[in-house]
Amino acid sequence: VITVVALNPALDVTHHVNAVDWAGVNRPVRVHTSAGGKGLNVARTLHSLDENVMLLGLAGGDTGAAVQAGLDAAGVPAVLTPIGAPTRRTFAVVDATRHTVAIFNEPGPPITGAEYDKFRASYEEALHASSAVVLSGSLPPGLPASTYADLIRAAADAGVPSLLDTSGEPLRLGVAAGPAVVKPNLAELAAVTGARVIDPPVEVADDSDLTPILKAAGELRAGSPTTVVVSMGPAGLLVDAGQDRWLAVPEPVTGNPTGAGDAAMAGLARGLVLHQSWPDILREATALGAATTAAPAAGEFTRYDYLQALRDVRVLALERV
Amino acid sequence: VITVVALNPALDVTHHVNAVDWAGVNRPVRVHTSAGGKGLNVARTLHSLDENVMLLGLAGGDTGAAVQAGLDAAGVPAVLTPIGAPTRRTFAVVDATRHTVAIFNEPGPPITGAEYDKFRASYEEALHASSAVVLSGSLPPGLPASTYADLIRAAADAGVPSLLDTSGEPLRLGVAAGPAVVKPNLAELAAVTGARVIDPPVEVADDSDLTPILKAAGELRAGSPTTVVVSMGPAGLLVDAGQDRWLAVPEPVTGNPTGAGDAAMAGLARGLVLHQSWPDILREATALGAATTAAPAAGEFTRYDYLQALRDVRVLALERV
Repeated sequence: VITVVALNPALDVTHHVNAVDWAGVNRPVRVHTSAGGKGLNVARTLHSLDENVMLLGLAGGDTGAAVQAGLDAAGVPAVLTPIGAPTRRTFAVVDATRHTVAIFNEPGPPITGAEYDKFRASYEEALHASSAVVLSGSLPPGLPASTYADLIRAAADAGVPSLLDTSGEPLRLGVAAGPAVVKPNLAELAAVTGARVIDPPVEVADDSDLTPILKAAGELRAGSPTTVVVSMGPAGLLVDAGQDRWLAVPEPVTGNPTGAGDAAMAGLARGLVLHQSWPDILREATALGAATTAAPAAGEFTRYDYLQALRDVRVLALERV
Repeated sequence: VITVVALNPALDVTHHVNAVDWAGVNRPVRVHTSAGGKGLNVARTLHSLDENVMLLGLAGGDTGAAVQAGLDAAGVPAVLTPIGAPTRRTFAVVDATRHTVAIFNEPGPPITGAEYDKFRASYEEALHASSAVVLSGSLPPGLPASTYADLIRAAADAGVPSLLDTSGEPLRLGVAAGPAVVKPNLAELAAVTGARVIDPPVEVADDSDLTPILKAAGELRAGSPTTVVVSMGPAGLLVDAGQDRWLAVPEPVTGNPTGAGDAAMAGLARGLVLHQSWPDILREATALGAATTAAPAAGEFTRYDYLQALRDVRVLALERV
């Protein structure tokens, strides 16, 4: 079982309007509600791939009940520890061009020590049956920045590899705890290392385009056995696995990139538990990201897009810089 | 008991942001959730006035559960008939100037015939103990425009006076069913009568300023015993009770006028069941509207503002035009 931790899930509400009046009353023509947050996207993608997955998280209030109902409807097994404060919402406004025009991300619910302790107990129990642990997303208020580091160490103590996708101080402390994989995007990598990482061209012409990114990834690893996977959007995934460095590039795809990084994370976790080679892992993770971008709804993909993307990914071994 | 009908309540979500980015990601600094809709505002105001009140309505899904929880917390007795579709949300964005910049009103949930029949049975039962019925707000999808007319006739059959606050076809059909009071605002009065009603000046200098409004109110009554109360915002309330016509004007007040019309409706219902004179009813209804405007949160008021506004309301008998 791949255990996915979602400490700060969300009820995602999308309002579709024909034309937005930012100074008046709008009547959305369509409202879409779904259980969201990075961990849930990862879990849903793994479930779509017929992987055994278990979502562990925190949920409260009527919004938390709606998140639980969404997971039930998707058939994703989940144990959500009840909390007193309501689970956060996100509101997205989408206009007739089908582009998201504005997003409102509510702050997460404050978590008490007793609530976290209950979650922690369910996590310890889940570790016995886990082949890998995925830790994705922001931490809700009340949890210390060391929370992911603590969960990574507990997994390591149980012999379970972990994959981390977060930002800022929780990322910095998390890497130091020795996860198998960390997956920052370019902005997160730049923020955590203080490096000035420039977006690479969509078509990488020369390995030297990647030099500043590889340098920052190396700083993040700091000589540890952790593999750093940098998600670069349309430019693909860049891997620094210590001895080996790889670049996986998808065919260009237009669509909605929301959740593409989470789909890639699902691919990394799956490849890790199947003991695949890095080129194979990267091919699958990149294809899942591309197929998710091609689908209109965030975090979904069709098997057709996935298989086509899988065929078209190019994986390149990079020289040591 | 004053029975208040809320067929299309809402979960009101307000996002407070420092500065809005209509093209990007916003992180609200504060999120406020409350049980909303016109009927709920009326019921809460009556409850604040220590009136015996009973809210009857329709609610479904997690949003409906949140509406029920909000009523419980406010101590307002309510019987909400369960429906299959989720209760609608409204989503308001408020910036640092404390002004609402945009509102998104979700469409109401579709109501099935069987669901309405269940509500209708609870309504028939409530009529036995009712001194008056307040019918406020829009109709959700699936209910015919004649719904309020039907409820008004059932109340009349049980000897219970009714007060109606809605718009469009439900208002037109509702008036024809003979409620004791209808309370359109100026825009609703203009829309339903086809008249071009101009907003009156805040300070009415001369009765002739009110001539087009009185003419439209007379058309809406069409010689029936129904009293028409026109809410005119800061210009106060205008009453056409057939023989008598009155104007009640509050002292100017700055604030948030959301829910002021509903507070006035609560005052009208209370005055009606207490068999007060129209000048007294209008004084109280106008003061409640002004006090609600003065309070920062929609639909709330302080006793101090209420008593001060009550003292300052001017009620004028108007000549027949």
